[in-house]
Amino acid sequence: MTATKIAIMGVGKIARDQHIPAIAADPRFELAATVSRSGGLDGVENFATLSELIAARPDIPAVSLCMPPSVRYEAAAEAIAAGKQTMLEKPPGATVAEVLDLARMAEEAGVTLFATWHSRHAEGVAAAKAWLADKTITALRIDWKEDVRKWHPGQDWIWEPGNLGVFDPGINALSILTEIVQVPLHLTGAELSFPENRAAPIAADLTFAGPGFIAEAAFDWRQEGGEIWQIAVETTAGTLRLIEGGARLFLDDSEQTVHGRGEYPDLYHRFGDLIEGGARDVDATPLIHVADAFLLGRRLVVEPFNE
Amino acid sequence: MTATKIAIMGVGKIARDQHIPAIAADPRFELAATVSRSGGLDGVENFATLSELIAARPDIPAVSLCMPPSVRYEAAAEAIAAGKQTMLEKPPGATVAEVLDLARMAEEAGVTLFATWHSRHAEGVAAAKAWLADKTITALRIDWKEDVRKWHPGQDWIWEPGNLGVFDPGINALSILTEIVQVPLHLTGAELSFPENRAAPIAADLTFAGPGFIAEAAFDWRQEGGEIWQIAVETTAGTLRLIEGGARLFLDDSEQTVHGRGEYPDLYHRFGDLIEGGARDVDATPLIHVADAFLLGRRLVVEPFNE
Repeated sequence: MTATKIAIMGVGKIARDQHIPAIAADPRFELAATVSRSGGLDGVENFATLSELIAARPDIPAVSLCMPPSVRYEAAAEAIAAGKQTMLEKPPGATVAEVLDLARMAEEAGVTLFATWHSRHAEGVAAAKAWLADKTITALRIDWKEDVRKWHPGQDWIWEPGNLGVFDPGINALSILTEIVQVPLHLTGAELSFPENRAAPIAADLTFAGPGFIAEAAFDWRQEGGEIWQIAVETTAGTLRLIEGGARLFLDDSEQTVHGRGEYPDLYHRFGDLIEGGARDVDATPLIHVADAFLLGRRLVVEPFNE
Repeated sequence: MTATKIAIMGVGKIARDQHIPAIAADPRFELAATVSRSGGLDGVENFATLSELIAARPDIPAVSLCMPPSVRYEAAAEAIAAGKQTMLEKPPGATVAEVLDLARMAEEAGVTLFATWHSRHAEGVAAAKAWLADKTITALRIDWKEDVRKWHPGQDWIWEPGNLGVFDPGINALSILTEIVQVPLHLTGAELSFPENRAAPIAADLTFAGPGFIAEAAFDWRQEGGEIWQIAVETTAGTLRLIEGGARLFLDDSEQTVHGRGEYPDLYHRFGDLIEGGARDVDATPLIHVADAFLLGRRLVVEPFNE
């Protein structure tokens, strides 16, 4: 089997921390080039623009787009139009309409488009989904709290409109929620807390209605002393808890043994499967819930945030 | 032919101004009951709740939901579950997820669900769509400006989150836009102006990208001296203009003769057709664009609004 040559566009923190090691460890992929205006990696050919990559390296059939979501659409559209198998970091776009449009374009072009939600690939998620499949949910609670200074050091772009603010981590929780809970949910209330000097929320409290239960979520970027990334699901057959972002699973306080490749290795494994099968995986639901939170949410102004 | 008995839920301004006269004029429908906590119409049986209507009047197969969108989902879900043919005023829900959920429920239940966009039924819209079908658009401009004091007198609920503010009229323009322009658009920028004492925007400026052109929209609720509801589309074959909310059509300043039943009579005509054909019509696209505007939009604070 020949490894699929892949290019990464957007060589920032997430690419260096996650994508590049995951590609290096996957025998089905070979990192063949990067696209970055600010420089790439030692020993890997770099292009300033995607257009230059497409023109110069027709031997590279796949691209993984890791830049901020506000500039992802144009690159994704260009990659799809060039027939590239395309993987998108989360969130898959700056708007819901963009994502639906890209899905349609990929289908028409017959190329693989994988709009990834890395948290869905945490080790405990598949087991949680399987356990919940025949249970009756009575309540659900998400706490997703981390320190923005730790996780987004110096990333001022994250506060600009279109980059989601605290929903950037919060959408990870929503991506797990919409994976493990296979009944439809819709937002019924939201409070979004904006620092008075920022254009994006630093905290959000959401309430969703599901059939027969309420789901509540608290997102906060002001957490200090260690992150809390957990989802607790009460059912008539006991309580399920995912902690550490979905990596560990508990049923009624008894930790379950779970297995997995790890989030990003599993993402690339799935991308490889989608390419081999000529398939696509584009689920806009987590982003729809976030857009709904902005649409429906009441805004609170809180103290300024300075890094 | 026996007229289909229909009940109206939510006997407010829009029901009295539009729905009730349209039903009265349509031989395929008969207004058989109303649902309203604040009283109905002389000579028409009224119920305080939809549940009471469903229990007492199984002979009524159709309902038209005219209450504010923030409370529409529960009623629509109940009506669909009871097997009622269901029509929704615009916007079809308070969130995008709600609308997609209702569409799925109606499909599973095999009932007609008609998420109406009344402006799509303005007299000039079908002709505009037909003319644009083979044209190349180079630019598009929407101006949708009206006096909120005139069009929503005393309706304080319109300023609450979930009721869209100036997007309540603006979504009419977006519903025409997405009907006459048959290429995908996505929002690339938005500025939303919020009065400092209100939780919903009083004005919005939007920019959309389409294939090869930019579409701009200016929505404003502070208009005095007559409303401006117009869409101008520049093409390589000339300029199309819809004015007066889509009622009048111009091609290069030459007014075209258009025909139609009028917006609400045509809505009920279409609802009758959908019921006869066992079909559904639920297009969430205009609401998706509005949610995207809240998601992506930069917020400006403007002077307080007092009625």
